[in-house]
Amino acid sequence: MTKVGIVGGSGYTGGELMRLLLAHPKVDLELATSRKLEGEYISSTHRHLAGMVDLKFENPDPVRIKERCDVVFVAVPHGTAMNIVPEILDDETKVIDLSADYRLRTDVFEDVYGIRHCDSRDAVFGLVELHREVANESFVANPGCYPTGAILSAAPLADIGMIDLAIFDSKSGITGAGIDPSQASHYPNIAENVQPYKLTTHRHRAEIFQELNRLDKGLENINFTPHVVPSIRGILTTAHIFTKDKLSLEEVRSCYMDLYRDSPFVRIVNGVPSLSAVRGSNFCDIGFEVDERNQRVVVISAIDNLVKGASGQAIQNMNLMCGFDETTGLWMPGLAP
Amino acid sequence: MTKVGIVGGSGYTGGELMRLLLAHPKVDLELATSRKLEGEYISSTHRHLAGMVDLKFENPDPVRIKERCDVVFVAVPHGTAMNIVPEILDDETKVIDLSADYRLRTDVFEDVYGIRHCDSRDAVFGLVELHREVANESFVANPGCYPTGAILSAAPLADIGMIDLAIFDSKSGITGAGIDPSQASHYPNIAENVQPYKLTTHRHRAEIFQELNRLDKGLENINFTPHVVPSIRGILTTAHIFTKDKLSLEEVRSCYMDLYRDSPFVRIVNGVPSLSAVRGSNFCDIGFEVDERNQRVVVISAIDNLVKGASGQAIQNMNLMCGFDETTGLWMPGLAP
Amino acid sequence: MTKVGIVGGSGYTGGELMRLLLAHPKVDLELATSRKLEGEYISSTHRHLAGMVDLKFENPDPVRIKERCDVVFVAVPHGTAMNIVPEILDDETKVIDLSADYRLRTDVFEDVYGIRHCDSRDAVFGLVELHREVANESFVANPGCYPTGAILSAAPLADIGMIDLAIFDSKSGITGAGIDPSQASHYPNIAENVQPYKLTTHRHRAEIFQELNRLDKGLENINFTPHVVPSIRGILTTAHIFTKDKLSLEEVRSCYMDLYRDSPFVRIVNGVPSLSAVRGSNFCDIGFEVDERNQRVVVISAIDNLVKGASGQAIQNMNLMCGFDETTGLWMPGLAP
Amino acid sequence: MTKVGIVGGSGYTGGELMRLLLAHPKVDLELATSRKLEGEYISSTHRHLAGMVDLKFENPDPVRIKERCDVVFVAVPHGTAMNIVPEILDDETKVIDLSADYRLRTDVFEDVYGIRHCDSRDAVFGLVELHREVANESFVANPGCYPTGAILSAAPLADIGMIDLAIFDSKSGITGAGIDPSQASHYPNIAENVQPYKLTTHRHRAEIFQELNRLDKGLENINFTPHVVPSIRGILTTAHIFTKDKLSLEEVRSCYMDLYRDSPFVRIVNGVPSLSAVRGSNFCDIGFEVDERNQRVVVISAIDNLVKGASGQAIQNMNLMCGFDETTGLWMPGLAP
Repeated sequence: MTKVGIVGGSGYTGGELMRLLLAHPKVDLELATSRKLEGEYISSTHRHLAGMVDLKFENPDPVRIKERCDVVFVAVPHGTAMNIVPEILDDETKVIDLSADYRLRTDVFEDVYGIRHCDSRDAVFGLVELHREVANESFVANPGCYPTGAILSAAPLADIGMIDLAIFDSKSGITGAGIDPSQASHYPNIAENVQPYKLTTHRHRAEIFQELNRLDKGLENINFTPHVVPSIRGILTTAHIFTKDKLSLEEVRSCYMDLYRDSPFVRIVNGVPSLSAVRGSNFCDIGFEVDERNQRVVVISAIDNLVKGASGQAIQNMNLMCGFDETTGLWMPGLAP
Repeated sequence: MTKVGIVGGSGYTGGELMRLLLAHPKVDLELATSRKLEGEYISSTHRHLAGMVDLKFENPDPVRIKERCDVVFVAVPHGTAMNIVPEILDDETKVIDLSADYRLRTDVFEDVYGIRHCDSRDAVFGLVELHREVANESFVANPGCYPTGAILSAAPLADIGMIDLAIFDSKSGITGAGIDPSQASHYPNIAENVQPYKLTTHRHRAEIFQELNRLDKGLENINFTPHVVPSIRGILTTAHIFTKDKLSLEEVRSCYMDLYRDSPFVRIVNGVPSLSAVRGSNFCDIGFEVDERNQRVVVISAIDNLVKGASGQAIQNMNLMCGFDETTGLWMPGLAP
Repeated sequence: MTKVGIVGGSGYTGGELMRLLLAHPKVDLELATSRKLEGEYISSTHRHLAGMVDLKFENPDPVRIKERCDVVFVAVPHGTAMNIVPEILDDETKVIDLSADYRLRTDVFEDVYGIRHCDSRDAVFGLVELHREVANESFVANPGCYPTGAILSAAPLADIGMIDLAIFDSKSGITGAGIDPSQASHYPNIAENVQPYKLTTHRHRAEIFQELNRLDKGLENINFTPHVVPSIRGILTTAHIFTKDKLSLEEVRSCYMDLYRDSPFVRIVNGVPSLSAVRGSNFCDIGFEVDERNQRVVVISAIDNLVKGASGQAIQNMNLMCGFDETTGLWMPGLAP
Repeated sequence: MTKVGIVGGSGYTGGELMRLLLAHPKVDLELATSRKLEGEYISSTHRHLAGMVDLKFENPDPVRIKERCDVVFVAVPHGTAMNIVPEILDDETKVIDLSADYRLRTDVFEDVYGIRHCDSRDAVFGLVELHREVANESFVANPGCYPTGAILSAAPLADIGMIDLAIFDSKSGITGAGIDPSQASHYPNIAENVQPYKLTTHRHRAEIFQELNRLDKGLENINFTPHVVPSIRGILTTAHIFTKDKLSLEEVRSCYMDLYRDSPFVRIVNGVPSLSAVRGSNFCDIGFEVDERNQRVVVISAIDNLVKGASGQAIQNMNLMCGFDETTGLWMPGLAP
């Protein structure tokens, strides 16, 4: 069995990694770290794991972590991961970083996040559907939650050079804001409400831009506006895409089918996707409609932000990096209703 | 006291008219009709009105209705109102129609709704902020819920001829779908979910187009995509507006302040609007941000779909039509939290 | 106009007092205090009041408060009110305290709250339905939210000496926990959940016991278990009451009708009450069913915790203390749906 | 591989059986029937199963069903199952019935459900924790959702003959009402609400009574009141239990630990259970507190109504009936948050 560790196991992505790893037949959870919860049972924080995970949070040094683990997931805040990754990564320990630290080119990262980078290493952007080369890597930067849904919704049209202008209007569940209470997550503020934020300046736009630009160098006009909706999980992205030529529904459909032919976790659905069908699963559901009035395609993508948007995708990366089948431990349906 | 009647009082807009009329100092509710509930107490359907409304639903003929009422609200389905309005409307009875039947030019209506119109009368589009002339009318077509929020979010920029392209991405509470249960309103289908629908073909686009076009004849590129979110009430519209010239935040702000200077129910807020602050009230909250990357303004409008988006706006129309102050009976804050 | 002040205006009960006072025809809001928000606009915290309340939070001394106000609502935390009330209360300034400080006999308070009382003054328990004598008082202790619903659900049966054993199982919206974010109010922890707490030890039991005991000296077996449910507002209490004799439904009904004959805010409903019909209103809806198997009556009461359970009830007290009609400014239906 | 069929696969319990069976390593789904959806893809109804279940709904006769299946789950409405079970059940086909038809003694069933029974066969009540004898059966009646949580919450105290009086106050998610829309499941009626119903007469009381009585013949005073809360899934039961003697917390705890020592799906938790930790899982979490004032124990149990309360429990029964380990295919944590 492959031994895996989680650095930063007290948050939602840490808990979700554990939930999913429990169902994975080829790995064992060796350790999960948390400075502030060191010595406490993991299941006292992640109560749904009671009876299934008997470990306590540890706080070992990087040397011990890489001695004990074959694969390490780093699930710490942005700006912190860059201090941990170089200490753990070596020829025998693979690392998947769930933070933003290695997703962007170093100069872009420093500009967008306003943080000086201390480890300007190259990393593959671990969106497996577009980066099969993760199979050859020992270090991967796991994509952001919003970018995962947005990029997958538009990549096929970018790939054929057809996008003139794209607006990604995303609606996210509140777990994207993390496990610590705040005004944003306060029930009376979010129930029965929709709360847009960072209307034009959200940092995830840079990831969306980078990846779509990789597919179409000339693509410039990429816009992103996020909203929080009253849902625990999920990101639904409405991509309003204006195309260079008029496309028929059939042309759009075949373009999506082509690019995702070998991507088991992308489902091109008939009808309009919604969050319910992907809740708890690693699927990205995609549907679309062509506007006959002008050269616009409206594409909807739906993911679970904690699974395909974070921990599930990280395990999908691990599967390829370790030579497992891509779907190992992840081939489970969503929890619906 | 002015005597008012409601034709079609068993639905949500009928119930909301009653809730609001109870607080109105210049009118008395004379009657509310319902064919299927004739003879039943109104409060057995609208249980929150128990102890406050003692009337029963009636089913009188149009002659009796106009004899007894000075003002009649017609709150019946699209396609039905056109049969009722001409029978009630006369020199002494004012009518406000909440259906779509008189909002569009007859030929556009027939095209969009696929129904032959039997009463192709002209009517003012009762969005008071843009149509002060309702004060001189005895018949007004009350705007649709989505159009109210969308038009108000973009009108100031249309008015100065600055809009090149506009995409309205709207998020609505489920009461927009009415009081009768359906798959769309089934709790397990809508809770913890976001459901887009009619991605490019929703009929309300025609109203948005008509009204913005009235302000700027050259405006063509108007797009609208609706979504249902887990909320009882409210419509939040994200207007992605690309402008002909680059505008500063100050220019945008003064353009909105100018147009809405005399509109007490439009609040230009600092920060980003949300549904909570308008719940139960007739306010439309508007906020915006300018994208420095391109000539884009993102405008957010928030309304309560049953108040400013339907029944409250209908009373606002009545106030002007009857010579009352515009805010009479409506000057109440939202229910927050 | 009567001038009113609010000491502690930054929380939910403060905001709700303002929302309701705006609709009150006989009073003007003179001031609202907040130490931490002094100098900030009230509407920057209570955003739904934008355009309607132009005041800023102040931090005046007690002398200034009583000079400027005829009535003062004290809406500060338990243990704090007892320091403020004696400084404000005098012959010309009436005070309604929304904290727990004066609801219980001093010795009971000290025992239940574990705080030494510094102002052991007698106060009427301001549950108007049972304490019409508030009309003669210049100081009233406003009841707790849970006790309001629980006491009203059982008082008629206690009044006729019929209760053998009562269990109050209450389900509350999360605003009862206040405006500050916490694990309890964190959306992912409360959505799609039910969270019982303090299963046998909640402090509100003492109020319920005191008031039911006042009606029936021999009553001992009073039990209370609270739960939080995914709702912003509202408390629904299920009172499982075992009676000394077998009672028919008619006997129970007439017993409730008798006690609440002159209580406009108590509605004895046909069918089973729910939170929707009272949301935003000062009503307490009550319904019941008699168990034919044993001597049990199940009574349901529904209130809005921020209105009848706090701020609305405080205004109801003010109305009587000031000689206004009991319903002045409060006679409005709930916001349903 | 064991071949399983589902009679009545279009509802929530049918869909949930499929979701869970997909993770079961020892069985294959052979067929699922639906008269009204015959010929349609299962995944067009249960959209979360897209890409994982490629079958269509069938409508074969009973002979074909038992030829093709080793185990059949019957998931049809009460009163219908009794016509299907005798036609399928034989020496080579095991049947688990999820309806109420075989849970009660025939005369009690006829009395409670008001239906004449046409197949008065004995069946084991498939609450595995109390009925290990299902391992020897080829036909089992799967318990109701409310009874599962209620019985497990009180069985240890009934088993030691300590219960004097028990009141089960249950709070259920809305999926208990089924997949078809109704006023009860209409989002505006259930969101932000709590709706009690059948305060003293719910039919599930008979199951609770039967099973607790089996443990303690003298037990008479059993009461049950259900409520719907705004949650898709889950049943939280608050059991107010008055005991014959005063018990300490330690005595209560050891009594529960004893009875459930060999029950992997019952977790005795520290603290107070809630729905989140069991969502999507087969666990029943139990916690309690002793009231020092009187001889009362408040016990909380939390289950997922569609898993431990229906389909998961049915698979747990299948596991024992087929000689598999009890936890096979079910040993997965809940989906939290």
